[in-house]
Amino acid sequence: MILQKYKGTIYPINPYADEILNTPVYSKIKDIPESVDLAIIALTAQQVPKIVQECGEKGVKVIIIVTGGFGETGNEVGTERENEITKIAHKYGMQIIGPNCIGIFDPYSGINSFLVPRERTIGYPTKGNIALLSQSGAILVTLLEWCAYRGIGISKTCSYGNAIDVNESDLLGYLKQDTTTKVIGMYVEGVKEGRRFYKTLREVTKAKPVIICKVGKTEAGAKASKSHTGSLAGSVESFKAMFKQTGVITAKDLEELLDICYCFATQPLPKGNNVGIITNSGGHGVLAADALENNDLRLAEFSSKTLEQLHSLPQHCTPSNPVDLAADADTERYEWVTKLILSDPQVDSVLVVTIPSGPNIEFQTIKTLVAVMKSSKKPIISCLGSTFKQFEKYKRFLEWNKIPVHTLPERAIRTLGALVEYKRWYQHVQ
Amino acid sequence: MILQKYKGTIYPINPYADEILNTPVYSKIKDIPESVDLAIIALTAQQVPKIVQECGEKGVKVIIIVTGGFGETGNEVGTERENEITKIAHKYGMQIIGPNCIGIFDPYSGINSFLVPRERTIGYPTKGNIALLSQSGAILVTLLEWCAYRGIGISKTCSYGNAIDVNESDLLGYLKQDTTTKVIGMYVEGVKEGRRFYKTLREVTKAKPVIICKVGKTEAGAKASKSHTGSLAGSVESFKAMFKQTGVITAKDLEELLDICYCFATQPLPKGNNVGIITNSGGHGVLAADALENNDLRLAEFSSKTLEQLHSLPQHCTPSNPVDLAADADTERYEWVTKLILSDPQVDSVLVVTIPSGPNIEFQTIKTLVAVMKSSKKPIISCLGSTFKQFEKYKRFLEWNKIPVHTLPERAIRTLGALVEYKRWYQHVQ
Repeated sequence: MILQKYKGTIYPINPYADEILNTPVYSKIKDIPESVDLAIIALTAQQVPKIVQECGEKGVKVIIIVTGGFGETGNEVGTERENEITKIAHKYGMQIIGPNCIGIFDPYSGINSFLVPRERTIGYPTKGNIALLSQSGAILVTLLEWCAYRGIGISKTCSYGNAIDVNESDLLGYLKQDTTTKVIGMYVEGVKEGRRFYKTLREVTKAKPVIICKVGKTEAGAKASKSHTGSLAGSVESFKAMFKQTGVITAKDLEELLDICYCFATQPLPKGNNVGIITNSGGHGVLAADALENNDLRLAEFSSKTLEQLHSLPQHCTPSNPVDLAADADTERYEWVTKLILSDPQVDSVLVVTIPSGPNIEFQTIKTLVAVMKSSKKPIISCLGSTFKQFEKYKRFLEWNKIPVHTLPERAIRTLGALVEYKRWYQHVQ
Repeated sequence: MILQKYKGTIYPINPYADEILNTPVYSKIKDIPESVDLAIIALTAQQVPKIVQECGEKGVKVIIIVTGGFGETGNEVGTERENEITKIAHKYGMQIIGPNCIGIFDPYSGINSFLVPRERTIGYPTKGNIALLSQSGAILVTLLEWCAYRGIGISKTCSYGNAIDVNESDLLGYLKQDTTTKVIGMYVEGVKEGRRFYKTLREVTKAKPVIICKVGKTEAGAKASKSHTGSLAGSVESFKAMFKQTGVITAKDLEELLDICYCFATQPLPKGNNVGIITNSGGHGVLAADALENNDLRLAEFSSKTLEQLHSLPQHCTPSNPVDLAADADTERYEWVTKLILSDPQVDSVLVVTIPSGPNIEFQTIKTLVAVMKSSKKPIISCLGSTFKQFEKYKRFLEWNKIPVHTLPERAIRTLGALVEYKRWYQHVQ
């Protein structure tokens, strides 16, 4: 898919170059004849205060400071530099993103301040409805690479580093009213204004789900986070309480963060917590069933009509939930059972496990399932156990058709749990 | 890599065919002129007892029954069939693997009873030192596909289904003395002889590590496991206590099971629990540091000599543990720091995180790191955050060189925790 190209004008500034990529270079920002909305500063830390001053004089509105070597170093010089640039920015009414960050990527406007050469990334994700915020630049790049690979679309992203001016609450407030954003995922080391963060979250989650992967949960992690973005990680318990009181969904790692965001972005909210499981591997059925309890989900009790119909399955299949279609399951058996389970009023959401090495599973099986899944008004997700390259196209086909696909059944069930958790919160606060 | 081809004679038996794959077909087992060591039965459940009787008369030593439709169905007919075939087998002194399983794959002898067409799998894993046991056939195939893809070598594997005769304790006893096996991984739904399993585990873990992913931990999971392999999942608490008392390492999911096995298969046991972390992404450093506590690991306190030397890193790097080499880290910086940290006597094991989209990371960086890692006498593992296809070769290069590589830092740290846990157990029981 083609990315939106940035349509505004870009002015390279460098005292030692005349031309960069066929674009004339200015030696100072004040030499630019037009007005400048956004300045991206990627210089050594020592040079930054002087350049921020020049930006202020030029009337720049927003600055992204990529440079590290400020408060996160833990030394006085770094902290002083931060104070100095904040003072200058306030004087001129400028907003600062960073320092120690990679800034913004917005596939809608084409703005991209990431200093990551294009040939080093998988390409950027396409337009979508997930916003991602991360203090860490490398974490954000990692997440975006996964998105691009999996066909997961993005609305807005921002890496905001030390957050000396624009912080998590400002960004959340913006995303609440951003019409392209349906769900917000965050990687958080620490927050700048705890009380304001709390209040902002309470408002935002009334409108859209917020999923947070909070790190610095242990002494060692907190120490590492302090030297990374200068963040005070805060007490685990207080964050836990805050997230509970504000309806935030917590993600235990980056994979879960993205998995949950993707599920919210593509699936409707379920009516309740009754899950139907269809599989051609009994073991995967057990793993999925085991994961329900921790996610406050239940194995759906099928209606008597469904149970009766399931008895027409071959004898070696399991005609109850989880429905084991057995190793010889084929397209027809999958299609028939998936339609049946989806139509059961006692089923609120469905997980379909397909181990593609089953002798009768073809690409057509996946295509047929996708057609059934796309017509569903209930959340439906899939699990393909295999990592075999030959089956990679099955996964991509599911994901490009907006059906979340997982390798581990536990991870799949976790995303359904998140939908139910938010549904309850949403009903509670409306 | 070329697989060992099975060198014995294979006799296809089917009353309706004359020839299969250029091999003459016998209509009954008793028509085979030579003696038969192993019979693989893949017929309908109704036919199995009669065929088992014929195997007994022929003097077959071991039978693998692939067929499902026995005790796991929960109906009387299935259970009676199981009793009948067990009786026949005992009468003739035959051993049974299964029913409801896919049996054995042994890359050393080339025996492979899996009914998975070769073109449907990634190919099978090569010879190695990890044994895998699983009641579920599909779970075992899933694990082996991962192994093949990641270049993880296998010693022996067995899917033993309903375990009406040969069970987990028999298999563990065999693997204890199997010289090709260094580490044993198991997927367990239930066990047949609890007391014997306990005693066997206590003996086996004195010789080699055993890692178990136990399922059926919740009511829903136990129900699913009952209808899958007819296993009674047993109480979570009693299994937890058993594993603790026998030095078994528990894996929370299939990925962790394989990750830990691979770490044991390739890495030496560490002296203690002090971990050094090297990264070019501060965020990944925080995630790794956070994961230490739950695994009973610590951030190593570097020696004063190491700390002193780290101060020659550029100012925007973090010269303490986790060592953040910053986004502009290159091969030279990685090599120098990795050697330095590995040589610190206060460091027992090392995690090296390399986010490959960093502008100065080349394939050469990975090659150089692998050379340093391979010369290490301490456990060393790696984390490559990216799933970008271009960097897939980096991962494969690490894994083919026996350096475990992970996408999530938490998963990497978990494997180091398992090494330390087993080291303590091993010292305790010697």
